[in-house]
Amino acid sequence: MAIIEYRPEPEEFGWTFGGLEPVRRVAPGDVLRLWTEDAFGGHLRSTSSRLSTDVPGLLTNPQTGPFHVEGARPGDTLVLHVLDLRPARTWGASCAFPGFGGLTSTDLDPSLQDLLPERVWMYDVDAEAGTVTYRALDSDHQMALPLEPMLGTIGVAPARGEVRSSLVPDRHGGNLDVPAVRPGTTVYLGVNVEGALFSVGDGHYRQGEGELCGSGVEGALWVDLVVDLLPGVPTAGPRLETDDSLIAVGSARPLDAAWRIAHLDLVRWVADRTGLSPMDAYQLVSQVGRSPIGNVVDPNFTVTAVVDKKYLPGLDEAADGLHQRLRATDLPARP
Amino acid sequence: MAIIEYRPEPEEFGWTFGGLEPVRRVAPGDVLRLWTEDAFGGHLRSTSSRLSTDVPGLLTNPQTGPFHVEGARPGDTLVLHVLDLRPARTWGASCAFPGFGGLTSTDLDPSLQDLLPERVWMYDVDAEAGTVTYRALDSDHQMALPLEPMLGTIGVAPARGEVRSSLVPDRHGGNLDVPAVRPGTTVYLGVNVEGALFSVGDGHYRQGEGELCGSGVEGALWVDLVVDLLPGVPTAGPRLETDDSLIAVGSARPLDAAWRIAHLDLVRWVADRTGLSPMDAYQLVSQVGRSPIGNVVDPNFTVTAVVDKKYLPGLDEAADGLHQRLRATDLPARP
Amino acid sequence: MAIIEYRPEPEEFGWTFGGLEPVRRVAPGDVLRLWTEDAFGGHLRSTSSRLSTDVPGLLTNPQTGPFHVEGARPGDTLVLHVLDLRPARTWGASCAFPGFGGLTSTDLDPSLQDLLPERVWMYDVDAEAGTVTYRALDSDHQMALPLEPMLGTIGVAPARGEVRSSLVPDRHGGNLDVPAVRPGTTVYLGVNVEGALFSVGDGHYRQGEGELCGSGVEGALWVDLVVDLLPGVPTAGPRLETDDSLIAVGSARPLDAAWRIAHLDLVRWVADRTGLSPMDAYQLVSQVGRSPIGNVVDPNFTVTAVVDKKYLPGLDEAADGLHQRLRATDLPARP
Amino acid sequence: MAIIEYRPEPEEFGWTFGGLEPVRRVAPGDVLRLWTEDAFGGHLRSTSSRLSTDVPGLLTNPQTGPFHVEGARPGDTLVLHVLDLRPARTWGASCAFPGFGGLTSTDLDPSLQDLLPERVWMYDVDAEAGTVTYRALDSDHQMALPLEPMLGTIGVAPARGEVRSSLVPDRHGGNLDVPAVRPGTTVYLGVNVEGALFSVGDGHYRQGEGELCGSGVEGALWVDLVVDLLPGVPTAGPRLETDDSLIAVGSARPLDAAWRIAHLDLVRWVADRTGLSPMDAYQLVSQVGRSPIGNVVDPNFTVTAVVDKKYLPGLDEAADGLHQRLRATDLPARP
Repeated sequence: MAIIEYRPEPEEFGWTFGGLEPVRRVAPGDVLRLWTEDAFGGHLRSTSSRLSTDVPGLLTNPQTGPFHVEGARPGDTLVLHVLDLRPARTWGASCAFPGFGGLTSTDLDPSLQDLLPERVWMYDVDAEAGTVTYRALDSDHQMALPLEPMLGTIGVAPARGEVRSSLVPDRHGGNLDVPAVRPGTTVYLGVNVEGALFSVGDGHYRQGEGELCGSGVEGALWVDLVVDLLPGVPTAGPRLETDDSLIAVGSARPLDAAWRIAHLDLVRWVADRTGLSPMDAYQLVSQVGRSPIGNVVDPNFTVTAVVDKKYLPGLDEAADGLHQRLRATDLPARP
Repeated sequence: MAIIEYRPEPEEFGWTFGGLEPVRRVAPGDVLRLWTEDAFGGHLRSTSSRLSTDVPGLLTNPQTGPFHVEGARPGDTLVLHVLDLRPARTWGASCAFPGFGGLTSTDLDPSLQDLLPERVWMYDVDAEAGTVTYRALDSDHQMALPLEPMLGTIGVAPARGEVRSSLVPDRHGGNLDVPAVRPGTTVYLGVNVEGALFSVGDGHYRQGEGELCGSGVEGALWVDLVVDLLPGVPTAGPRLETDDSLIAVGSARPLDAAWRIAHLDLVRWVADRTGLSPMDAYQLVSQVGRSPIGNVVDPNFTVTAVVDKKYLPGLDEAADGLHQRLRATDLPARP
Repeated sequence: MAIIEYRPEPEEFGWTFGGLEPVRRVAPGDVLRLWTEDAFGGHLRSTSSRLSTDVPGLLTNPQTGPFHVEGARPGDTLVLHVLDLRPARTWGASCAFPGFGGLTSTDLDPSLQDLLPERVWMYDVDAEAGTVTYRALDSDHQMALPLEPMLGTIGVAPARGEVRSSLVPDRHGGNLDVPAVRPGTTVYLGVNVEGALFSVGDGHYRQGEGELCGSGVEGALWVDLVVDLLPGVPTAGPRLETDDSLIAVGSARPLDAAWRIAHLDLVRWVADRTGLSPMDAYQLVSQVGRSPIGNVVDPNFTVTAVVDKKYLPGLDEAADGLHQRLRATDLPARP
Repeated sequence: MAIIEYRPEPEEFGWTFGGLEPVRRVAPGDVLRLWTEDAFGGHLRSTSSRLSTDVPGLLTNPQTGPFHVEGARPGDTLVLHVLDLRPARTWGASCAFPGFGGLTSTDLDPSLQDLLPERVWMYDVDAEAGTVTYRALDSDHQMALPLEPMLGTIGVAPARGEVRSSLVPDRHGGNLDVPAVRPGTTVYLGVNVEGALFSVGDGHYRQGEGELCGSGVEGALWVDLVVDLLPGVPTAGPRLETDDSLIAVGSARPLDAAWRIAHLDLVRWVADRTGLSPMDAYQLVSQVGRSPIGNVVDPNFTVTAVVDKKYLPGLDEAADGLHQRLRATDLPARP
């Protein structure tokens, strides 16, 4: 096991999944200690900042990577376990951008109406206290909210030779904006190209389900990951595992399709891990499943389908070993 | 305050919201102690029962009601606080019905494919232990799940002279299938006709988010409700309140539309209760909102948008008084 | 065959399908000569008229009917052949109403944006020339467009005891807003209640596919219909037949679902009429089908699936006889 | 003006838009005489052929190109006028492939149901008679259908550095499957990268609207195009122009979104070309627009919004000159 530290130089960021040369080569078992820029490129620094003028080329969502994983081949599964996520700045930013967001018409579903105004909200981070502070723009209201760092974007190079913008979530992962991608979570991604070529970015200091206005509390992160590989095990779409739960992820439009992709995958995963028939797994998930929504704002919407392990009769514990082992990775504290 | 006990005779059930004569007249402040039949009319009693043969006329989802509320007029808000829900049987049933459910084509979104087979699962209820027991049909697996009773259907007569099947959720409430309609929750419904004419039914002993296969653990319930009225206060769509949260409810197709209806209503509700501007409320909900899905199987899908009261700066506590007062209703135990 | 003339008194209009007493009883074979009011109740009479102030109670889309058809029973098919549609006024009106229309957010899919402004356009009708004249509001442009009268709304009482607003299209017909409902077209509707209880209304002097802004050139009509009945023949959703084509109609949200309902029904209809297997009919419709959109603005959207009879190998001509016979109905000219 | 003839060698096909080296460099004004392979790579040659076994790697929809257009820069508009499309084979093929098509669940909107069976239909082409012959698989029915060649796929390299599979239609064009891309039609595409890098392919000898089963009558084509360029004129999404009509194209999911993209673009195009205000253009298109559906089967669905030029008051005829000029291109007959 190597520990690889990497903080991208300004010219090293990527804005796509696929189509990029790797920034580093890593091996299964390696620990990565990374730095990720926020989705606004760090350019929204006050409530008077504007995406339209302060972010060069409107080039949002820079990624750290891609990383080439030794031995990863199409048909394998890349395993990324999130060990730790820590704010790399004392402030975060969120914005409402005209034509982007959940309660507005957009380029992908437009109208003749005027768009909402551009607004930027700044949050102070108190890592000690574990809070980020919301401050209203139009009144004096403020409120400390729990600091709950997550990775908005995590993915590999897509299949069929495609290259996708880092704004897009799909089968290859990408801009999922799922709060469950946080410390303690194992992420499974199907490998489509040699080396897998995964990237991460888009840290949120916190985010509500659905990412209503189009952005979380966006902030630079220190990211600790363990990399592993399941050779010969295909994975159709992103799956997550925590100590307590199995989580299938679906990204599509409309939201119903994302919901169906996630739930069909969860039903099949439950059947595989428990020996239940598909119809019996369908019934069980119907009664114990949860379905937190990731985002309803990106080019594809993302829904998660969750079942707690405690409800899985005859769960194959052996298959559970990988998550437990990665979870136990011993990592020296950052200086 | 009167305590009104009512258990419908077989011929007294209703299968619509609107279009029915009231079964009782009640007044704001009254407590109702009701009995509700399960969505299958109590006809699915073993794993070999079949909707297609055992439920006369396929007439599902019988309702208890409607109740005429004295003084309720269009433009008012009916308030129903759920005091208690208790299983009225020692067994519950769930089924997969061809052409109905979340992972199948349906009449409302059909395909040329063969439909899934009909299946019925039976659950034993252990009220003492607080469990319902899942039993697989195709293997020996079984598993005790928490008993968590909820009302799947609650609503008033619709606007514009419409009469809607009890299978439909919409602005008038109806078949929401939202697990948050459980003991301790206050339900607000806009009144469309004189007397409001509300009904309840479709008890679930438990249900996963989304009601994946099309039904929860369906079971007859003893239902205790307090009725109240907010004269002159309109409510566009169903809203729920608990000790901890405000919950807006949206029902539509596709799921995105239900999500938007719920979230726009929540943003406006938060703005009203806190004095935040709409854009500031939009931002706050973006970071602290949750969006549990009710159902993705009914003629309209239902999404809830939830914000915890602890995150609402300057929450108008006065408006909160009604929920607290109803919550404190003292009710003698049933014999 | 009786000829029944009927022009409703102001208090006789209906605003729902279902829930109404019949205005007349008619028999299969009868010819009806009716008058229908426009969707705005005739209240938009100049470009300064406003729905919000000039239409009492915003009660739009008044219907002529319902008519009780002797002998019609659930499981039968009601047949309405449109003999003639003629403008009953020399002007028509169209409007953009805030929160209604195809390029705006709506109550059923809302946003935080400001709504579009209310606008009313007036059209002059020249029945001799066969034109309606468009006049721009913000410039001097004007343009004669072909007069092509159609019935926007045609339907029966719904199933399951429902009563639906006349704004809604669904299995029972209703507010389809399909230009193909014009003279020479036979409409088939499944009967849900004794007497069928059909109504018609919402004449358009012309309408583009999709009814983009939310209304056609709305105008009062003289309507000549022949009524017939297919006893014991069920029809799941509306079907149309012309000299040249079979047209299946689907109404739902989102538009994809309406498209699928219409096309699955057309595939089955083609298979039934030609003896092709369902997969062969699927293939044939794939290559020769057309799919004009009716509306993308009503509570359900409507798509039609069309196949020309000339492409139907082995078409069962016998079944075609009814349309031909109704088509040949001899009707004295109106005085 | 050069005439460039090009028939790709087997190793020269492309399966993406973007990410490829150009096969030729061409200049505005050049005429291209191309050969395109069918979407199945020519591998479906009998009704017993199968995509799953006969098409290597399931690599469907090979493209001819990309072509680098001298001087084309981001922000310009590429103009491709279709002069002629002629069958390059005497047979065409169509298929139903499991999990692909309009009346089945798919990877992008899945279900637990069994998929439809794989089927292949073969069509004989009679270029003299101008027909393709449909032959049923499960009965003796056959039927000559009009030969109406079209290009299913036409597009440029996408924006933001993306590379998209040739199966996908989007802002860059691609797999639109719009029957209006036929001889006599001018196609406008916004340029995203230097040289534009356009490709064409996926000829259909005919196709119904919507491409119901997932494929048209797929066939190799001889394709004659004229290339032109509008420097400094941006075009957001594909637009088509014929002698008679302006046609805006929208691709998205669900179908409603594709419909809105196309219609908003058409309203703006009409306003630009006529001087009508946006609201007046909205009204005019509402009464005279048509909306033929391209496909409801690809990763994005495609809708066209059409208005006939004869209905455009004050149409700017000057802007119309380009189409007329390209239309008049004199081309020697192929030997």
